[in-house]
Amino acid sequence: MTSLLNEMAKQTSSWLSGDGDENMVVISTRIRMARNIAGYKYPTAADKETNEKIVGHFSAVHEKSDCMKDGAFVRDTDLSQLDKDFLVERHLMSPNFMHDNNSRALYLSRNEQISIMINEEDHIRMQSLVPGLNPEKALQTISQYDAEIGKYLEFDYDADFGFLTSCPTNVGTGLRTSVLIHLPGLVITKEIDRVIAKITKMGVAVRGFYGEGTDVLGNLFQVSNQKTLGISEKETLESLTTVCRYIIEEEAHSRQLLVDEAFEQIRDKIWRSYGILKYAHVLTSEEVMNLLSALRLGIAIGVIDFIDIPLINEILLFSQPAHLQKYYMEEMDQDRRDFIRAQMVREKFAAFKI
Amino acid sequence: MTSLLNEMAKQTSSWLSGDGDENMVVISTRIRMARNIAGYKYPTAADKETNEKIVGHFSAVHEKSDCMKDGAFVRDTDLSQLDKDFLVERHLMSPNFMHDNNSRALYLSRNEQISIMINEEDHIRMQSLVPGLNPEKALQTISQYDAEIGKYLEFDYDADFGFLTSCPTNVGTGLRTSVLIHLPGLVITKEIDRVIAKITKMGVAVRGFYGEGTDVLGNLFQVSNQKTLGISEKETLESLTTVCRYIIEEEAHSRQLLVDEAFEQIRDKIWRSYGILKYAHVLTSEEVMNLLSALRLGIAIGVIDFIDIPLINEILLFSQPAHLQKYYMEEMDQDRRDFIRAQMVREKFAAFKI
Repeated sequence: MTSLLNEMAKQTSSWLSGDGDENMVVISTRIRMARNIAGYKYPTAADKETNEKIVGHFSAVHEKSDCMKDGAFVRDTDLSQLDKDFLVERHLMSPNFMHDNNSRALYLSRNEQISIMINEEDHIRMQSLVPGLNPEKALQTISQYDAEIGKYLEFDYDADFGFLTSCPTNVGTGLRTSVLIHLPGLVITKEIDRVIAKITKMGVAVRGFYGEGTDVLGNLFQVSNQKTLGISEKETLESLTTVCRYIIEEEAHSRQLLVDEAFEQIRDKIWRSYGILKYAHVLTSEEVMNLLSALRLGIAIGVIDFIDIPLINEILLFSQPAHLQKYYMEEMDQDRRDFIRAQMVREKFAAFKI
Repeated sequence: MTSLLNEMAKQTSSWLSGDGDENMVVISTRIRMARNIAGYKYPTAADKETNEKIVGHFSAVHEKSDCMKDGAFVRDTDLSQLDKDFLVERHLMSPNFMHDNNSRALYLSRNEQISIMINEEDHIRMQSLVPGLNPEKALQTISQYDAEIGKYLEFDYDADFGFLTSCPTNVGTGLRTSVLIHLPGLVITKEIDRVIAKITKMGVAVRGFYGEGTDVLGNLFQVSNQKTLGISEKETLESLTTVCRYIIEEEAHSRQLLVDEAFEQIRDKIWRSYGILKYAHVLTSEEVMNLLSALRLGIAIGVIDFIDIPLINEILLFSQPAHLQKYYMEEMDQDRRDFIRAQMVREKFAAFKI
């Protein structure tokens, strides 16, 4: 696993490739699927022995399964705190997972399209992450793993309810789809609260960059479905896609409004952000996210035509604290990180002769 | 005069050449000399007829005098509001002068080393402006004009008091020396109040960029002597020079402190200022002054080695509202100015490939 992580630390995540549907607004789509193995207490209630058995069961599946050959399986105890933070930053692990030592484990495919957490809230939590707005692709990937694991392990399933989960909000499909979406237009025009209020009524939740309970940084929002019971997987996906299309339309409208009514101010903000990123010698992670947000908008509305989205995503990813430390293979305190982060961005921007 | 002003509108003032003693701290030295013609009420108390006579007397001197050949003499009524603002920005005219039509006039030498206001607070107020810390040079220039005018006109002079002036604070030498000084170190280290308190006790006044009652912009302060009575011209100059040397020493100490203890932050601030100036599309006059202040400090402490002080001064001068409009020969509202100002700065900075 450590070698896989070190390899990852040198490259962008595939979900940040900048490709995919609606890539000027939607960064990525994630599907998370919760499964529990029949006959065992769920992690929130189980003792260490039970948890260990679950890890053992999954480990056996991992060894037998063909589709998990090109990846790594690791115990919580084998990961350093920096590695854990790195995986959270990469959105391959939930922030709370592995923060206490409780017989947890993680499977990660080399291409990062799939990650599987063992003994998080449920025995098995699979996640598939793809660029752009593409829940179908994510579901396709995750279903393959679901079917594969289901060949070896019996899942808790109720004919009436569907898949059973630790938290009742996941019972049914056990599926949560979330879309990482960039909404600078709605934030700047102050329309964001209205839109959030409306989509909340449509049954979706809106969260910050790192998921539940985290702040909105760089105008990046995570939008996810809330309903899992009495609904099919297909319906879940369709309903979230409908909400996303609505948000995208509202965002497009706001961006057009900015272009029509405040173009000089917006262009100024975008170019200043470029100037600061290009020359700053101290940059916090949060500031980088906000500056990149302006550049991302600038690319979308055609103010900036010499930077591409993959570079924006790359900087977004690597300017995070653990990524920075993994990349430079150096433990750094915050001051040092802010300094090295600015240096990294300057190096990447030095190529631009504008 | 209009042709002289249009000529000036294309070039930097000689007092902003960036040369002269202590040019990393001191922008320029100005000497102002107040004189009144014997037998006439002073402008603050005189009627229009008297004022007109004074203008007539000076006009006659101007025509006869050799040293005033290469310059222009203009009546207040012949200057547009924009021209007046332009002259104030260039520090060739006091802000209040010519703001009411009261038989006023102005002489200006082509090299801008001397300007003479007729019927400001006193009948004659001569000003000499030179780059760097150089009161001797300014006095030399002004004395030449003082002597020349004195050949033709009798000044109000009292054997006990010295030269008589409208305001008692100028009686004696009639001389006010002021030095435009850049004190970012003292401002950033928050030592400025202590230093101002101390020099105020030493008998000098501290004012903002445009003189009495104006704000401090871009960390530029005007330091001037207060005492004119019972003191010789030489003593006045020496005493102000002593105060300036003290301020320069304190400023140097603060800059060294910044370099030693907060170099990363200062370098960051300087480079960010460069980045914003290089790429902003909207810039207020005030913001430009503050950004230029950071660059000026950057040049002084060696962080920036590819920009020189004359360019900083040129931008400082031409980013002012009236200069901008004179230069582009276009009347502009504030939004337009902020846009054109940014464009001008970008054009000047485009030469830098860093």
